This record gives sequence, C-alpha cells and structure tokens, in this order.
Amino acid sequence: MIATQTYTQLYQDALLNDVIPFWQKHSLDRQQGGFFTCLDRKEKVYDTDKFIWLQTRQVWTFSMLYNRLGGSPPEQRADWLDVAQHGADFLTKYGRAEDGSWYFSLTREGRTLVQPYNIFSDCFATMAFGQLSVATGNDAYANLAKSTFEQILARRNNPKGRWNKAVSDTRPLKNFALPMILCNLSLEIEHLLDKELVERTIDECIHEVMDVFYDSNLGLIRENVTPDGQFSDSFEGRLLNPGHAIEAMWFIMDLATRRNDVALLEKAVRITLDTLDYAWDTEHGGLFYFMDSQGHPPQQLEWDQKLWWVHIETLITLLKGYQRTGNPDCWAWFERVHAYTWSHFPDSEFGEWYGYLNRQGDVLLPLKGGKWKGCFHIPRGLFQCWQVLKEIESVGIAAKHR
Amino acid sequence: MIATQTYTQLYQDALLNDVIPFWQKHSLDRQQGGFFTCLDRKEKVYDTDKFIWLQTRQVWTFSMLYNRLGGSPPEQRADWLDVAQHGADFLTKYGRAEDGSWYFSLTREGRTLVQPYNIFSDCFATMAFGQLSVATGNDAYANLAKSTFEQILARRNNPKGRWNKAVSDTRPLKNFALPMILCNLSLEIEHLLDKELVERTIDECIHEVMDVFYDSNLGLIRENVTPDGQFSDSFEGRLLNPGHAIEAMWFIMDLATRRNDVALLEKAVRITLDTLDYAWDTEHGGLFYFMDSQGHPPQQLEWDQKLWWVHIETLITLLKGYQRTGNPDCWAWFERVHAYTWSHFPDSEFGEWYGYLNRQGDVLLPLKGGKWKGCFHIPRGLFQCWQVLKEIESVGIAAKHR
Repeated sequence: MIATQTYTQLYQDALLNDVIPFWQKHSLDRQQGGFFTCLDRKEKVYDTDKFIWLQTRQVWTFSMLYNRLGGSPPEQRADWLDVAQHGADFLTKYGRAEDGSWYFSLTREGRTLVQPYNIFSDCFATMAFGQLSVATGNDAYANLAKSTFEQILARRNNPKGRWNKAVSDTRPLKNFALPMILCNLSLEIEHLLDKELVERTIDECIHEVMDVFYDSNLGLIRENVTPDGQFSDSFEGRLLNPGHAIEAMWFIMDLATRRNDVALLEKAVRITLDTLDYAWDTEHGGLFYFMDSQGHPPQQLEWDQKLWWVHIETLITLLKGYQRTGNPDCWAWFERVHAYTWSHFPDSEFGEWYGYLNRQGDVLLPLKGGKWKGCFHIPRGLFQCWQVLKEIESVGIAAKHR
Repeated sequence: MIATQTYTQLYQDALLNDVIPFWQKHSLDRQQGGFFTCLDRKEKVYDTDKFIWLQTRQVWTFSMLYNRLGGSPPEQRADWLDVAQHGADFLTKYGRAEDGSWYFSLTREGRTLVQPYNIFSDCFATMAFGQLSVATGNDAYANLAKSTFEQILARRNNPKGRWNKAVSDTRPLKNFALPMILCNLSLEIEHLLDKELVERTIDECIHEVMDVFYDSNLGLIRENVTPDGQFSDSFEGRLLNPGHAIEAMWFIMDLATRRNDVALLEKAVRITLDTLDYAWDTEHGGLFYFMDSQGHPPQQLEWDQKLWWVHIETLITLLKGYQRTGNPDCWAWFERVHAYTWSHFPDSEFGEWYGYLNRQGDVLLPLKGGKWKGCFHIPRGLFQCWQVLKEIESVGIAAKHR
C-alpha cells in the first residue's frame, strides 16, 4: 500500500487555505456585480471584462464546494454560497441573449461585448445553475440549467451557428470538446433530467469519445474527425490536444464506475497512459499543449507551452485510474506529474497558481487569472484529488489488474 | 561613409540564389494549380490547403520581381512570370465569392473552406493583380485589382461583416492593420487609380497611422483605438504589435519620400527607434511579437516569440530610415537587428528561413511555410534591403540631421 497521506493533506490545504480564499478575497466586484478574473501575480485587477466561461465556472465551483463540503448543517459555509449567489445575480441579469443562449463576454457593467457564438458558455452555465439549484433549492435555477441543457442539445450539430466561418460542406468535421463535456454535464445535472435522457446521452457520449474520436490505429484521441469518425488529413484533423483527451478520461472513468463497467475503466486508463507517453516532454518535463498526429508543425504557436489545466486534470485522471484499477503505472505517472506540477505552477510567495509556462517551465505570463484561467480547474482538481486520495486511504484501491 | 557592400551582396544572393529558387522549385502544384505553402524544413509538402493570403502574395512577389528585375528585355525572367501566372489562374478560377470578395482558404482542388470574412485576402489580391497587370499588360487583371480595391474601401468600416462576433456598439474599436496596408496599397496600384483618389487615400492613411493610431503620450503606435482615436483600456486597446508598427513606418517613409516631406520622414524614424527601444528583448535578443502598453499580461500566448516577418520588415525600415535621414541610430540598429536575424532565421542546411523562434531564439516550428508564412515577407524584404543598399552605394545617404 502506497502512503498517500502527505498528498491528501497537500491537496486539501491548497484548496481550502490558498486557492479558494484567493478568489473569495480578490475576485468579487462589489460595485458592479460578478467576478473579476483578470488578476495579476499580486492579486491586482488588470482588466475588468467579464467572460461568461469564467463567471459561470466560479459560480459552479463555490456552489459545488458548498454542496460537497458545506458541513452538516451546510450553512457553516454560507460565505461560499454568498459568492456563488453574487455571480449568479450578475449572470441572470446580463448573461443571456433573448433566445436564452449565453453570451461570450460582457463589460464590467454587464453590457454585451461578444455574441453567443460559443456553446461552452452554455455548458458552463448549465453546470453552474445545476449546482446552485442544489445549494439553494431554488427551482428557477433548476429550470435555467435544464432549459440551457436542452438548448445545447438542440444546437450541438451546428454550435457556432451564423458565426461559423467554415463552409461546412467542404470538409465537415466534428469536434471532441462537446461530446467530452456532455459526458460530465449529464452527471452534473442528472438530478434535473429525465432518467431516459441521461442514459441515452451517456451512451452517446461514451461511444463518441471512446469509439469515434479515439483512433485505435493511432492509439490516441483526435480533436476533430469527419462526421463518420474518420481521420481528416488537415490541420484540424491532425490536431491532438493531450490535456483534453486525458481530462475526458476521468469523465469516462466516472461514467464507467457508475455503470460498473470494468472494461471501459481499463480502456480509459490505457488511453491515459498512452497519451502521457506521447505528450510528455522528455527534455523539459510537463505535457505539451498541442501536437500534430503526423508529427508535422501544428498551427498553434503555443503548442509547446505547459498549461495549468492540462496538468491538474491529468492528476485527477491518474488518481482515479489508480484507485479504480490498481494499475501501478497510474501511480508512477501520478508522482511524476505531481512533482512537475507542484514545483512549477504554485506561486509560493503570493498564492494561487500560474497558468502559463513556456516549454522550459519558466513563467510565461505572470497572471493568476485572465480571459481563460479563473476559479475552476485548480480548485476542482484539488478537490477531486483530495477526495480520491481520502477514499484510497479509507477503502483502498481496486485489485491489481495484472 | 559606412561600408555596405558585403550587406548588399548578402541580400541579393539570398533573394536570387536561395529564397526565390526555393519557392519556384517546391511550391507549385502542377496537378491542381496554385501553390503549396505548407512546406517543412526539407521542402516537403505537409498540408495542401490553399490560403488566399499566401496564394495572392506569391503572385505578387513573382510579378513584382519580374517587373523590377526582369531585365531588359524583361522576358529574360519569363519563368518568374510563369509562376505568377500559374497562381493567378488558380485564383481567378476559385478565389472569389459571387459578390467579388476573396475567400480566406480553399482545398487543394479549389473548393471553398473558409468564407471571405478577412478583408486582407482582398488587400493582397489587389496587390497581386496590380503587379500582374503591369507584368502582362492584361486589362482584365487591372480591372480585377481595381474592383477589389473599391470593394475594400466600401467594406473598410465593417471589414468582418456578418462574421463579426463583437457587438460593435458596446466598445467600438478600429484596427491599425487596414489603414497601414492602405498606405502601401495606394502606391502599389497607383497606376490604376484616379489621381485624386490616390492622394485622398494617402492623406487619410498618413493621418490615421501617424496621428490617430500613434499615441503621442505613449510614444508608440497602438493596434486598436476608439473610433475617435482614444485609448481603450481593454485587452485590444492595450495591445502593441511592434513589428506591425515598424513595418508601417517604411510604408510611411515611402509616402514621405514621394511627397518630399522631411518632417514626416523624421517622425517615422523617431517612432521606429522608440518602438525598437520598447520591444527589443534585452535578455535574448530579437523583437517581441506582442506587448501590452500598460505592462499587463497580453492575451496572446505567443507574445514573446520571435517571428520572421517582424525582423525582416524592421531591417527594411531601418535601411530606409538611414538612407533618407542619415540618422546613425538607424544604422546601429540595422546592424544589431541584422546580426540577430541572420544568425537565427536562415536555414543554412536546407535553405530558406524559419518563421517561428521561441523567446530564446531556438526554432519553435521547423517549417519554411505554413498557413501564414509563404513567399512574401522574406523575398520582399531581401529585395527592398538590396535595392536600398545599392542606392546608398550609388547616391549616398541624406545629410545627417543632427
């Protein structure tokens, strides 16, 4: 039995004594509502725009923590619920277009900056109001989550709508992100959905992720495939996003556990380990952000950078894989990724984590939050790792599979 | 008098014996027409998509070289005209939408991939067919250049049209790229335009670039300003693109020379030198790609990378500034930027230049061409530098201004 206690304590402390207090203290806009997410190294606000991804994700994080850790009675952490409510008030006032779809960004005051072209705003809004409905028992939030989810399903085949610049007939491609997020979303708001819809959505998502986007010849998950699941020899078709693929594997592991599907668990572990082998930077450590499946130069100039979310999501996946299959490679990789992550991302002087490192592991942008990094991946990851580590301590791991 | 002969020879040789032969040999698609631009380090085609920016720019480059260096009689380089004609045939067949606007990208066969959302496709098409009309004397090309130019002017206030995701009333901003390119474009196709329109366009462009986008408090050119030319404290408003600003300064210098406007020349030199002071990486050398005018983290993850076009454009500007004002700082900076550029970008083994280096100056993407790098900045820059150096040798530089 591997000793996990030091890890457990580390993840718990970072969540409760560093990351959550950081956002609780520095991100609330007391004048205009909502959250500032553009915080520099020393917690100062350097931009006041409000990005719906990050507004909704912070509502989700504080609601989820309240629901899961609020104590008994949960009112002990009423301050967390206040933070979630603070964000929800701003979002319900300014976040949606007339048709109910969620904008991409707003000014500090809540005026629309960018149209609802991005379906992931809607995904994160669904998660946020799903958790908040549990925390508050407020049916209005439940209905908002449910109606947004239904809109996502209706839009899923043409998510960018009229803002799509691609001529879709010429080289039709489907993207991995939506089925991947639906895996997670369907469990997030299971309590609000018809049981049959949940099971059907899960079936479809597992199939899409594990059969369609997973390329069994390549042994990796592709970011874009043709409508019938084939490889497209184009920049989009060759694109690999290892962090995305590995993050999806813990969503799949959660679905596999729910269904008691050992073969699915094992397959998710296999894909995780193969992706790590492929995407680990053997020279400088850390996981690459983007790669090309044929080894050609990718279009993304940031391809070799080391990103916060890639690393924390990988830690979750490895711990779940270890807990649920006992595969010792998961633990070995966990320790390796943990060592890289904790020696590079946390800012020991001013708290919270850097988001963007260059290939060498130096800080590329000294921010704690921006347009894409907010109060989400780090606290969710710390929470997930802490919980899995606690479970490993209390009930052990699955029997070794080999 | 500074000895320039070694430089002159170097730029000439690189153009005529390395870069032009590289594209002439490796980029023509003999089966389907047009050019391959995605060429890896060893000249192999790794993607076959055809990007209108790069198709039109290569037509421009070969037409321009034919017009300027074709010899007397120019038919001596009929092979260059053939290359231009090869690209033009593909473009006239597949490049335009029904309304005459130019698409952004096509498949190898010429099917539309991405809609005409990008007005710079039209700008480079205007340049291409303007030069080709001179090379061939074909009125159809002249008319195509002219009608495209008129469409650009008509679209200039809403260049993205229906693909614009920003709600334009909330934070209206105008972008530097279009007035900057119009400076150059109006001279490129001067022979096709009404004299009065040329002068009016030049007046407007000089005013926009030197009074509106140039922020006299900051001492630098901004990439985006409010419609009345003010600073917007937002990611877009704070954005600096030093290479863009410096490239624009040689367009301005050419206009200033044409008008014999010494004050304008001096101002362009001042802005160039101030931008270099601001954007030069004192730690690793080279010019940063993007910066934030308030020193905040920029949104662009590639901000610290060193790009081919930034450096070759800077060399042109510095040589023109030196030639036309005699400012010794221009020459000192030229030697510094030259040394960095020539020791980092050219690939001495397989020819042509790398496009993308990381901050440290190592190759980030080992490509010679891609979605954005083609046969344009390097040959244009080598040609411009060579010509200016020759002129300096034959007629000397302007009297020292101080």
